[in-house]
Parts: sequence; structure tokens; C-alpha cells
Amino acid sequence: MPAMSADQIDAGLQSLTGWSRAGNAIAKEYRFANFRAAVAFLVRVGFEAEQRDHHPEIFNVYNRVTITLSTHDAGGVTDKDFDLARAIDTVAD
Amino acid sequence: MPAMSADQIDAGLQSLTGWSRAGNAIAKEYRFANFRAAVAFLVRVGFEAEQRDHHPEIFNVYNRVTITLSTHDAGGVTDKDFDLARAIDTVAD
Repeated sequence: MPAMSADQIDAGLQSLTGWSRAGNAIAKEYRFANFRAAVAFLVRVGFEAEQRDHHPEIFNVYNRVTITLSTHDAGGVTDKDFDLARAIDTVAD
Repeated sequence: MPAMSADQIDAGLQSLTGWSRAGNAIAKEYRFANFRAAVAFLVRVGFEAEQRDHHPEIFNVYNRVTITLSTHDAGGVTDKDFDLARAIDTVAD
């Protein structure tokens, strides 16, 4: 699976909300009511990641969680990242 | 609760394993067998944090988790951070 070009990534991002290109990755910051809501979200993200054997970078401070997605083997962003991004948006709702 | 001096922090770190001073904070990287072990650890860290109403910065990539602790209200490291560090070491074992 080849890495997408910047133009391909930007085109893909049109179908998502709140995601942006971050170097060779895509990223989004989520905000929750409090820390325990953020941890609950991380657990659900964990199940989505394991199901796909595709794992995000996760950064959490209190009620904020930043998710960064890229495909290590491809050296950039692939469809796998967009698929996981959509799944994460679903569990965040 | 006043922030500790760098010397006080270094003295406190003598009683911990794997923690180091990171600017105005203390930090440690944990490695686990796999991603799901890392997520299970994050959940346990979450309970320790909520119990103390004191929250870490968490960074996770696959089986690696970096925990960074500081006391925002004090603008640096306090006993609260050492207390949480010890609790996190206990759940990591």
C-alpha cells in the first residue's frame, strides 16, 4: 500500500471533520467533558486499533486527546489511516 | 504546595527507578509486551490519577507509554507528582 501524496491526503481530509495533515501523518485533537471521558475514549480507540492491527499515536492531557495516524510500513498516510480515523470519529461521538 | 527545586527533584528521584527530570516535570517511558498491555496500563493509570485528582501527560505509541508529571498550580514538580509516580510504578509491575 503506497503512501498518499499531500494532494491525495488533502482530498481525503475533505470527507472528515477536524482532521488535518501533520507532516507525514494526519491528526485530530478531541476534547471531552473530563479526564475519565478521555480515558474511556482511549479504551474504545484501543479496540478499533487492535481490530485493524493499526495503531495510533495518542497524546492525552486531562480532557484533551490528540490522535496522530500514519502507516509506518508505507512511510506516510494510507487508506488504513483514513479507515481508522473514521472509526475513531465514530467512537468519539 | 511549592514547586521543588531541581536539587530537591533530583534527591526525590533517587528513590524511584527509571524516572528523570524533564524540564519542569518528571517523566518515565514504560515498555510493554504489546499495544493491548499498554492500553490496560493506561486504564489503571487513569484510576490512580482520578483517585488523587492529579493527572499525567500520557504519550502512547504501540507498546510504549511515556508518562510526564508536573503540578500545574505550582508551576513545577511537587510531592503530588512523586506520589503519583510511585502509584504508577506499582500498577506497571
